[in-house]
Amino acid sequence: MTNRIQGTTRLVGLLGKPIKHSRSPHMHNSAFEFLKEDLVYLCLETENKDLEMALKALKTFDAVGANVTYPNKQEVLKYLDEIDEAAEIIGSVNTISIDDKTKKIKGYNTDGLGFIESLEKKGIQYKGKKMVLIGVGGAGRAIAIQSAYSGVGELVIKEINKEVADEVINTIKSRIPKCNVKLLSNNEDELKEELKNADLFVNATPLGMKGNTDACSISSCDIITNPNTYVYDIVYEPKETKFMKLAKEAGCETCNGINMMLWQGALAFKIWTGKDMPIDYVKKELGLE
Amino acid sequence: MTNRIQGTTRLVGLLGKPIKHSRSPHMHNSAFEFLKEDLVYLCLETENKDLEMALKALKTFDAVGANVTYPNKQEVLKYLDEIDEAAEIIGSVNTISIDDKTKKIKGYNTDGLGFIESLEKKGIQYKGKKMVLIGVGGAGRAIAIQSAYSGVGELVIKEINKEVADEVINTIKSRIPKCNVKLLSNNEDELKEELKNADLFVNATPLGMKGNTDACSISSCDIITNPNTYVYDIVYEPKETKFMKLAKEAGCETCNGINMMLWQGALAFKIWTGKDMPIDYVKKELGLE
Repeated sequence: MTNRIQGTTRLVGLLGKPIKHSRSPHMHNSAFEFLKEDLVYLCLETENKDLEMALKALKTFDAVGANVTYPNKQEVLKYLDEIDEAAEIIGSVNTISIDDKTKKIKGYNTDGLGFIESLEKKGIQYKGKKMVLIGVGGAGRAIAIQSAYSGVGELVIKEINKEVADEVINTIKSRIPKCNVKLLSNNEDELKEELKNADLFVNATPLGMKGNTDACSISSCDIITNPNTYVYDIVYEPKETKFMKLAKEAGCETCNGINMMLWQGALAFKIWTGKDMPIDYVKKELGLE
Repeated sequence: MTNRIQGTTRLVGLLGKPIKHSRSPHMHNSAFEFLKEDLVYLCLETENKDLEMALKALKTFDAVGANVTYPNKQEVLKYLDEIDEAAEIIGSVNTISIDDKTKKIKGYNTDGLGFIESLEKKGIQYKGKKMVLIGVGGAGRAIAIQSAYSGVGELVIKEINKEVADEVINTIKSRIPKCNVKLLSNNEDELKEELKNADLFVNATPLGMKGNTDACSISSCDIITNPNTYVYDIVYEPKETKFMKLAKEAGCETCNGINMMLWQGALAFKIWTGKDMPIDYVKKELGLE
């Protein structure tokens, strides 16, 4: 018997559109299979207008939960019965659980948490530390707010869209006042100055990803003068981005976004199953080693 | 890579309740896997009150189709855009397809057709022939009407519920007048008389199935006097029922309901995929050999 999907197998969905390219089904189904969890993860194309109905259907179909992605990460807030505090501050949800008995829906955001978890697993200190972050739209917003929430002491943000940046900074100032947050201008000298005593330097823009590998959020390695800064690019294709190469030239340790991607999945996996995702197996299955 | 379920994998559902015990997911998923069809078959618990929403969700989720079972086989008629003629006469649908582009839903009934297909595959003549059928509630109703529709010449029905029997007989008389249909009384002598020149003798009651193996729709083998009658029991657990044993004592060739079950699935499989189900492989996977 090779087929594992039986009458008892319960559904976990991915609600978004477009989603056919997503690697999450392969990640979660490999992990379900490995741990003999009687679950299946499936892309269920859903736009904003169909989201309420899709969530009702998941309840009826006795689904365990779902991931929620573009364009539904904010829209889903309307339909939650409960929300994790950090996700509420971030203002977007990428993971939901459905209570077996009450059918109540709780929302979480594992994007920012995946970033924090990847630092934890690498043993990189962030509590009370200084982080310089480029890009706070999309994933960068979750990283900024979750980092502040999880204890980063000083957060310096560079973002070309001032409106987006102001909103994130005001949110952190009002909701997470223990974190010291500020916005940089687009003058790279200012960035260079802030990086002198930065513990973490993070690129959360899509610059440098596959198809656009020559792009980079910094102009040269001269911007980075402190080799003790840990440099993190959330891009993971290619495995070594231009941002990472420049950081290496400056003598810094670097990493790409694979672990953030894996850990955001592993945290969702834990929410649905109560179990740790078999990360090494999943990495191999996804060809990420 | 062992997991086959990716972002592109499309859904086929089973809409009913209770359905967790169903063998259809194992049957279809084994066949999908064998033929490398990028589909997954999943039990999606649905009662009458949720059926309309469930069908909308299947359209949104880009599902290929579904099986429909208790208690939704009649209820689903309300939501179809098109219906196969035999299914319309039977008045119940167990299989739907969803058009990729228009999202229109067409309904079919493969229960009765699975019976006919199993006769075809065994090379048993039924066109213009005489069939004696015990039980026309549930699956028996689909067998009666589909047999008449597919060309059985003379259909003799025995059914303890007169109201149920009259409804089936009136339907056949008005919609399929080419078939000569009549109802027997509960006097077994009448049954014995009709069996003298019967080509097919079918039990479509649940009598004799697992948990109740001593029950039988006939009292003894003396009822069957013509060894050329082909005797068909739609029960398939146990593999040899009391009905079949008595028929063998009377010198008849017999079969159980495994092939009907497999062929109703294979016909649905063909509707969804356009391909023939790999029957031998599926039989082995289901432990039916």
